[in-house]
Amino acid sequence: MLQQYINSHRESFNAYMMGLIEKENIPNELKESMLYSLSVGGKRLRPIILFAVLETLGLDAKKGYPTAAALEMIHTYSLIHDDLPAMDNDDFRRGKPTNHRVFGEAIAILAGDGLLTHAFRIICQDNGLTDMQKLQLIAHLSEAAGPTGMVAGQVLDMEAEQKQLTLDQLKEVHLHKTGCLIEFSVAAAGIIAGISQELLQDLRQFAKHIGLAFQIKDDILDVEGERELIGKDVGSDMENGKNTYVSLATLAGAKTLLDEEINASSVILDKIPYDTTLLMAIARFIKERQS
Amino acid sequence: MLQQYINSHRESFNAYMMGLIEKENIPNELKESMLYSLSVGGKRLRPIILFAVLETLGLDAKKGYPTAAALEMIHTYSLIHDDLPAMDNDDFRRGKPTNHRVFGEAIAILAGDGLLTHAFRIICQDNGLTDMQKLQLIAHLSEAAGPTGMVAGQVLDMEAEQKQLTLDQLKEVHLHKTGCLIEFSVAAAGIIAGISQELLQDLRQFAKHIGLAFQIKDDILDVEGERELIGKDVGSDMENGKNTYVSLATLAGAKTLLDEEINASSVILDKIPYDTTLLMAIARFIKERQS
Repeated sequence: MLQQYINSHRESFNAYMMGLIEKENIPNELKESMLYSLSVGGKRLRPIILFAVLETLGLDAKKGYPTAAALEMIHTYSLIHDDLPAMDNDDFRRGKPTNHRVFGEAIAILAGDGLLTHAFRIICQDNGLTDMQKLQLIAHLSEAAGPTGMVAGQVLDMEAEQKQLTLDQLKEVHLHKTGCLIEFSVAAAGIIAGISQELLQDLRQFAKHIGLAFQIKDDILDVEGERELIGKDVGSDMENGKNTYVSLATLAGAKTLLDEEINASSVILDKIPYDTTLLMAIARFIKERQS
Repeated sequence: MLQQYINSHRESFNAYMMGLIEKENIPNELKESMLYSLSVGGKRLRPIILFAVLETLGLDAKKGYPTAAALEMIHTYSLIHDDLPAMDNDDFRRGKPTNHRVFGEAIAILAGDGLLTHAFRIICQDNGLTDMQKLQLIAHLSEAAGPTGMVAGQVLDMEAEQKQLTLDQLKEVHLHKTGCLIEFSVAAAGIIAGISQELLQDLRQFAKHIGLAFQIKDDILDVEGERELIGKDVGSDMENGKNTYVSLATLAGAKTLLDEEINASSVILDKIPYDTTLLMAIARFIKERQS
């Protein structure tokens, strides 16, 4: 069911998002580089979450397209910079050469900078929202993606390479590195729908749990997944001595933690006065995905 | 006189801007890296222009501090990324080691990303402005700094290394690479002061001229300047075969072009119904500076 939902949005959202870059007067190579990484799209998890929350709250998912595009651009910039030789030095992502392998390091850095900056412009240009909503979105997004959010997570992750973390410390890394943007995808839908602060808080808690669940599942897939499906060598995290939920808590322990996060997310959904079937499906998808 | 004006703002503005980073919960090394490059401040040209336009329009310069800090953060991020090994590979800037020489490439990339992202948050948090003003500022800033503005200029500049440009093409590079942010510094003051579109257009034209004048003077100083004052070897652009106003138009030709831009900026100031003494002084400073 969720796959159907994802498919129903993928094509139109991708076309919309690419159009936001294609229509601009951007130097050719830079534009190609930005479009390349945007199009090597994975699951579009963050946009899908945003759409699902919007529809749960009774709004048309299309009302979230501009914000979701901004969000996906920021997610994509973070992957481009993350893959750079000075950072993770990855040659492949999702089975395709990374941006700097195709366009060179300089253009890759600038494509990342360009996507990050353009994201804020896209929210400004969204005619379907009030000024106050746009400002709230920009304030939240700049906090989630910035030096107290995602960028902090990146630094914490790098620092963690030198030492063994506790489970709590690993959780802290993920809450920043990936959690902040996933939380934004939920909070953004709440801002667009104009819900109460109380409901917004509940939804943010839901986002925290599924964000952590997503990371735990990632670590489990690194051990149990199939190479063809996950797009990288199985066991590569273990070999690199990375801090993972599996290395810190054993495989069985990681599966228990995954169950706990998914259960906690369900408990929150149960008390929300809306039909949460779609959000339940997302939580289940995160738990059961094979890639 | 202008030096006095610059001095009167430098200390309080610097303290204000540093405080915006210091107060945040940012991982230590990242925070130090961001503060390092912010504190290796040069002339603070863009903030000074913003303050001068505000005061010309009858407002207190302090009303522009948040926007000027955002602007300076974005300018600083662009210098950090620009200096990276994959880009210009510079070891020194303003006589001090570049960010990646002190903190390593990974942190330098992330410090740049952090400053860029945080800039937008700072505008959101400015309590002295209306929502509409903040959104206008963010829309302008993201356009000026993004893939159709400053980032485009960076790409055009890189592409220019492979070929000889015409004077018009060189102008195009500079209008993007440095012109867009200088134009923003003037436009931002106009938005904060709430001036008419017509006056805003005039001021933007003024900014375009002094922005180009600034670049022409840079190229002249590369030939005529004193090493101690300009902080790099005299003649280094020439040696590197760079496209400069001097290499394309001769030294005498560049001086004529500089005069033309300064004169054009004066003509605009003459028709503005305000006391433009301070803005005149800025134009003169740009023309006569020795560093």
